[in-house]
Amino acid sequence: MRATFMYGAGDVRVETVPDPVIQQPTDAIVRTVRSCICGSDLHPFHSAPASEVGRPVGHELIAVVEEVGAAVTTVRPGDFVVVPFAYQDNSCVFCREGMQTACIHGGFYGTAEVGGLQAELARIPLADGSLVRVPDLDPASADGGLLASLLTLSDVYLTGHHAAFMGRVEPGKTVTVIGDGAVGLSAVLASRQLGAERIILMGRHRVRTDLGVEFGATDVVAERGGEGITRVLDLTDGEGSHVVLEAVGHLPAYEQAYGVVRPGGIISRVGVPQYEEAPIGFGSLFGKNARLAGGPAPVRAYLEAAIPQVLSGAIEPGRVFDRTVALDDVPTGYAEMDARTALKVMVTV
Amino acid sequence: MRATFMYGAGDVRVETVPDPVIQQPTDAIVRTVRSCICGSDLHPFHSAPASEVGRPVGHELIAVVEEVGAAVTTVRPGDFVVVPFAYQDNSCVFCREGMQTACIHGGFYGTAEVGGLQAELARIPLADGSLVRVPDLDPASADGGLLASLLTLSDVYLTGHHAAFMGRVEPGKTVTVIGDGAVGLSAVLASRQLGAERIILMGRHRVRTDLGVEFGATDVVAERGGEGITRVLDLTDGEGSHVVLEAVGHLPAYEQAYGVVRPGGIISRVGVPQYEEAPIGFGSLFGKNARLAGGPAPVRAYLEAAIPQVLSGAIEPGRVFDRTVALDDVPTGYAEMDARTALKVMVTV
Repeated sequence: MRATFMYGAGDVRVETVPDPVIQQPTDAIVRTVRSCICGSDLHPFHSAPASEVGRPVGHELIAVVEEVGAAVTTVRPGDFVVVPFAYQDNSCVFCREGMQTACIHGGFYGTAEVGGLQAELARIPLADGSLVRVPDLDPASADGGLLASLLTLSDVYLTGHHAAFMGRVEPGKTVTVIGDGAVGLSAVLASRQLGAERIILMGRHRVRTDLGVEFGATDVVAERGGEGITRVLDLTDGEGSHVVLEAVGHLPAYEQAYGVVRPGGIISRVGVPQYEEAPIGFGSLFGKNARLAGGPAPVRAYLEAAIPQVLSGAIEPGRVFDRTVALDDVPTGYAEMDARTALKVMVTV
Repeated sequence: MRATFMYGAGDVRVETVPDPVIQQPTDAIVRTVRSCICGSDLHPFHSAPASEVGRPVGHELIAVVEEVGAAVTTVRPGDFVVVPFAYQDNSCVFCREGMQTACIHGGFYGTAEVGGLQAELARIPLADGSLVRVPDLDPASADGGLLASLLTLSDVYLTGHHAAFMGRVEPGKTVTVIGDGAVGLSAVLASRQLGAERIILMGRHRVRTDLGVEFGATDVVAERGGEGITRVLDLTDGEGSHVVLEAVGHLPAYEQAYGVVRPGGIISRVGVPQYEEAPIGFGSLFGKNARLAGGPAPVRAYLEAAIPQVLSGAIEPGRVFDRTVALDDVPTGYAEMDARTALKVMVTV
């Protein structure tokens, strides 16, 4: 099969490798319908050291089941499925608490053992916990927009939803979303779904913030840093935002977050932090009782509720895709997302 | 009157100064019944630079109202009151949201303008928002233990309660309390009140942890650092604690907190952080979706519910006091708390 590997910063290659095979009775093999490139893939695309050995990449996928191991009971060959970006048994103590990304037996795609999902085929460990069937839909004849929206349930939309959920977005709340990438726009859409009264989107790419407005943003702030903080405080009568959803992952975005959060408010981060240490003392979080939440989204926890929302057309999160490439052109997709000429790139096979 | 001033690390003096007077129609003047020394007073006692001008200190008080300004309507001379450690109007937008320590018009005691509360008399700004009457009790004839417990509602017990409240302690939860000082022990008692199933107290001072057990701790862990983390993980089947209440304020205590918190769990801090930057990235909070909460306790928000709990004898948080000094002996009280020969020192006049 063809599959994508990263050899270092800026060096993405699509190569022919052996097809994956069932290794454990709980495995499934799935064939890609659509995959895509994640904003988080851009972090190693910027900074990964050059290596002789390529690291398999990709973790977002909708697919058709090809083959299942002897122990798999909930999906069978021919089923059309959404693949959450982490695999999990969906039954351990942390999964039962809705923290599937901390599953005791789970893990992440993109390792030598498990492989990546920007590929023609993939081995899915713990298939019963890691695949969710889309009922009554034939991907071969399905509408392209619908497939795009289903694909976002593998990661990006439900990561935005996780941000909003952990931020306790609810009716009456003012929400500030930092970042107009695909996760930020998803966080806008999810906040609207959860009933936010006001949604301030901080971003400077007009095409993206325009989509943000269509998704439900009520205000757009293009300024950054201290100037951006002042603008958000002005928009909120000097009080600050009840909830801040940080969808970037760089330290300046976090600094903006504690600058605009209201006393007692919540900062919810889903941009993978590209820092370890950051201010949390009296002058940033503690003094105003600001709370901090967020982490890798337990997509699996939210999938059953989200699939019907997409199938009914209630939400169209797939609108974040503005570019589609064939698998062999994935390197071009990385370059376009990196150059910000594409917002989010879908991959066909 | 006599009042307490700090001139630098280790240099606390009780001096005679002019009596405070009504400055604003919203002020009240109160006469001390009991005051006390706070663990947070020990931070400047360790590190404040020497100064020619003493800073007034003390922020915990039960008192009798002497005089009120023309605009004060809720208390009158003779009323016995609890004084929250911050003053507030209790009516601004943040007060209405239960974040009185962020009151737009409020502030903290211990400034040249407002004075400290380790004194015979005190000026209370915004008296309607900042004084809560204790009904039907004459402090002159009240039981000493009852007065001690009422005094803890000014700060220490309700700071422990705030930690537990922001940590969302509830029945079924495992709570780890870091620190066996008066706030940590208060957090144990508050967690028990909120129905915690299991309360692990991390502390190494036997007399204090014994009181913690009487307050409701089910386990005591004397080890610190990596060894302490291992012990707590062992006690929780390797899963970690749903809630961690950090009642110290030093970085190693915070590091212990993210070491023992469970995926998706909450760290709630009430020890005033003696650091600004700390780990919050993938390896500490983000990777396991751990949440961070806490800050200066909005004692005012909790007072009306807590006073009847003390008056009925349902809780006896005043047991944290193990030493009483007269106002002129406050410097000795600081030295004893600093040397850990006293857990918490009450001050009479």
